[in-house]
Amino acid sequence: MSKQALLIIADGMGDNPISLLNGLTPLEYARTPNLKELASKGLFGNVYPVKPGVPVGTDVGHLAIFGYDPYEVYTGRGPIEAYGAGIDLLPSDIAFRGNFATVDDELTVIDRRAGRINQNTDELANAIDGIVLSNGARVIARALSAHRVAVVIRGQNLSEHISTTDPGTAKEGERVQQSAALVEDKNALETAKIINELTEKMYSVLSLHPVNQQRILDGLPPANMILLRGIGREIQAPKMAESFGIRGACVAGDRTVLGIARMAGLDVFHQEGFTAGYDTDYIGKAELAVSKLKEGYDWVVLHVKAPDLAGHDCQPMTKVSTAIKLDMMVGHILQQIDLEQCYIGYTSDHSTPCDRRDHSGDPVPTFFAGGNVRSLPVEDFGEKFLVHGALNNLTAIDFFHIQMDHLEAVRKLGA
Amino acid sequence: MSKQALLIIADGMGDNPISLLNGLTPLEYARTPNLKELASKGLFGNVYPVKPGVPVGTDVGHLAIFGYDPYEVYTGRGPIEAYGAGIDLLPSDIAFRGNFATVDDELTVIDRRAGRINQNTDELANAIDGIVLSNGARVIARALSAHRVAVVIRGQNLSEHISTTDPGTAKEGERVQQSAALVEDKNALETAKIINELTEKMYSVLSLHPVNQQRILDGLPPANMILLRGIGREIQAPKMAESFGIRGACVAGDRTVLGIARMAGLDVFHQEGFTAGYDTDYIGKAELAVSKLKEGYDWVVLHVKAPDLAGHDCQPMTKVSTAIKLDMMVGHILQQIDLEQCYIGYTSDHSTPCDRRDHSGDPVPTFFAGGNVRSLPVEDFGEKFLVHGALNNLTAIDFFHIQMDHLEAVRKLGA
Repeated sequence: MSKQALLIIADGMGDNPISLLNGLTPLEYARTPNLKELASKGLFGNVYPVKPGVPVGTDVGHLAIFGYDPYEVYTGRGPIEAYGAGIDLLPSDIAFRGNFATVDDELTVIDRRAGRINQNTDELANAIDGIVLSNGARVIARALSAHRVAVVIRGQNLSEHISTTDPGTAKEGERVQQSAALVEDKNALETAKIINELTEKMYSVLSLHPVNQQRILDGLPPANMILLRGIGREIQAPKMAESFGIRGACVAGDRTVLGIARMAGLDVFHQEGFTAGYDTDYIGKAELAVSKLKEGYDWVVLHVKAPDLAGHDCQPMTKVSTAIKLDMMVGHILQQIDLEQCYIGYTSDHSTPCDRRDHSGDPVPTFFAGGNVRSLPVEDFGEKFLVHGALNNLTAIDFFHIQMDHLEAVRKLGA
Repeated sequence: MSKQALLIIADGMGDNPISLLNGLTPLEYARTPNLKELASKGLFGNVYPVKPGVPVGTDVGHLAIFGYDPYEVYTGRGPIEAYGAGIDLLPSDIAFRGNFATVDDELTVIDRRAGRINQNTDELANAIDGIVLSNGARVIARALSAHRVAVVIRGQNLSEHISTTDPGTAKEGERVQQSAALVEDKNALETAKIINELTEKMYSVLSLHPVNQQRILDGLPPANMILLRGIGREIQAPKMAESFGIRGACVAGDRTVLGIARMAGLDVFHQEGFTAGYDTDYIGKAELAVSKLKEGYDWVVLHVKAPDLAGHDCQPMTKVSTAIKLDMMVGHILQQIDLEQCYIGYTSDHSTPCDRRDHSGDPVPTFFAGGNVRSLPVEDFGEKFLVHGALNNLTAIDFFHIQMDHLEAVRKLGA
């Protein structure tokens, strides 16, 4: 494979016209000369994450960007969090996404995120990790960012057909939910039983933990429970990097994205300054991505979370600034790579329109430039300027295959 | 759900260039300033009913507009006519679309539509309704518009794998067809037998009926038979309105459309002046649709049949006039709703090109305007002016999801 490609993912960047921005979207409003220049050198359009009008989560959006059909492979968020935490799942495991939470001594949920705890969660997760349950199953727990924690149960005859323990946002003030079998099945009954046993054990272990004793002294809510949700099993899908015979790298701060990249067979790279927040180190990411290209990776994925946060927070001007910073990052990258040798792609996992404060089913601005790909002029960069492009109305899975094909990594169908 | 949407369906409006109209389509030729204005405020394009190059019937086209995949749910026209007639089907029922017809005493078909009978068909249907057949099954019959009638057989062990009794247009002058089993199956044999029994009974009952005695005296062909076709079973599909958690209303004159809307879980509204003809009450429909929006319905569908009739009749200038009337109706609506609060969508169930006098597989002009949807300029309204839009080449099912997503009614896939 002679050529390489860099794919930049601007999480949640797609948006709709905003009156505060003179009826433009943040991407249309922001001055982004590098993105415009690249779009005009390549294929472009607004691409649907999965299907027109279907909003997707970050997990599903990234599965599609990495070439997976979420309708085939998605089994819940739990396994993806486990991948993000660096846990290699076995087919017999069940995996959850967990929240550190605060409960009272009757297990009533006081705070679903334990005051958005952001310190010492590794120690708390370690206290849970390795617990052995009455059926012989073992608990694996790894802290993720903030109050998030990946929990895997490893044992025999575990069932994913059980209800989980998180009462959900609407039901704060209720007790930690009892897990129950969702099917009439011995394994489901037994699995629900050990999950309820785990709830009791977690409370015993965590409420006495020195980290929580100190939190109480400091007037902070103790993280004395882990609420479990998003149950799923190992995603039974081939590693895309292997299927296409490419060596891939992912540079990101977001654990979910790193988890999916790992599942797809990419090597994942994360540094201290990659915060998955507004303050993330754009230039550090660019440098690391470029160094991975120089090391010979065929496909390097660079992910920036900030635009999505601005959408959820309904901050159009902040979203504009994420676009400008991203464009400057692209300018920095362009100084160091040769577009004849390395394609640059750009997309998002979904739109997060500011006025919705959540993901929408709108398509996302996307391009693939460099080498000798077909090109058309663009007037500027942003949603409305890309509608006439060759990629318009394709899907993220299509876009993945188009990139792989330009890397000559797609096997010919037929002879 | 804070916002609302109105969807206007111009049945069969899509067309091809016509020399009589200076090489324009009826929609391009007609002066339609309101449609143009709305298109320029939203997403637009030519949308395929189901697939490129596949012509569809009114029933299938509307199933897709209401979000159903016709390849999954369509089981024949019979059940849809039953829904239109207000019959709640049971899973064990078989349903037919029927024609009142004129036969001689050897059951030879003289007129497949009994002189397009248009009066007293309720009385004739009542005479058939309630007939009990030799296997204990009961007949349900409800008159529809003109010569049309819905016929349902309710009983046990009924099979849909039988031939039906209508000899078809090409075979006028032949006998009412004998129903026969299409599979080697006891239930199919028995069902064919009772359908043939029903043919005999219908002739006995209808030929002696006072309505027909009077028709003969008046020199009109008696409606002394019901020809059966379009056999099918209950459509096993969720009600879309429930699936998406919306309150929907459908304002229409056409029974088939009302039937599908009812099946989709919409409340249906029909008034005397809604004729499903050229003379339908456009302004009455507009008023009723607006009143349903004011009552708080989330999604109101307004259907106009006339453009399709003009296509079938090969009347380009008449079709132009239906477009102008429809545009005036839209102008009337625009005076009463706030586009910030209520989106307006426009589409057709299929194209009915005048020169074909039948439905074609061409895509149909479509838009979705209002709120802060992404928009692009349009030069004018009509097929050729919409090709560069964001909806171009999507399908009616995509369009349904896009509308539902803007109502924030589509569940997020993933987390």
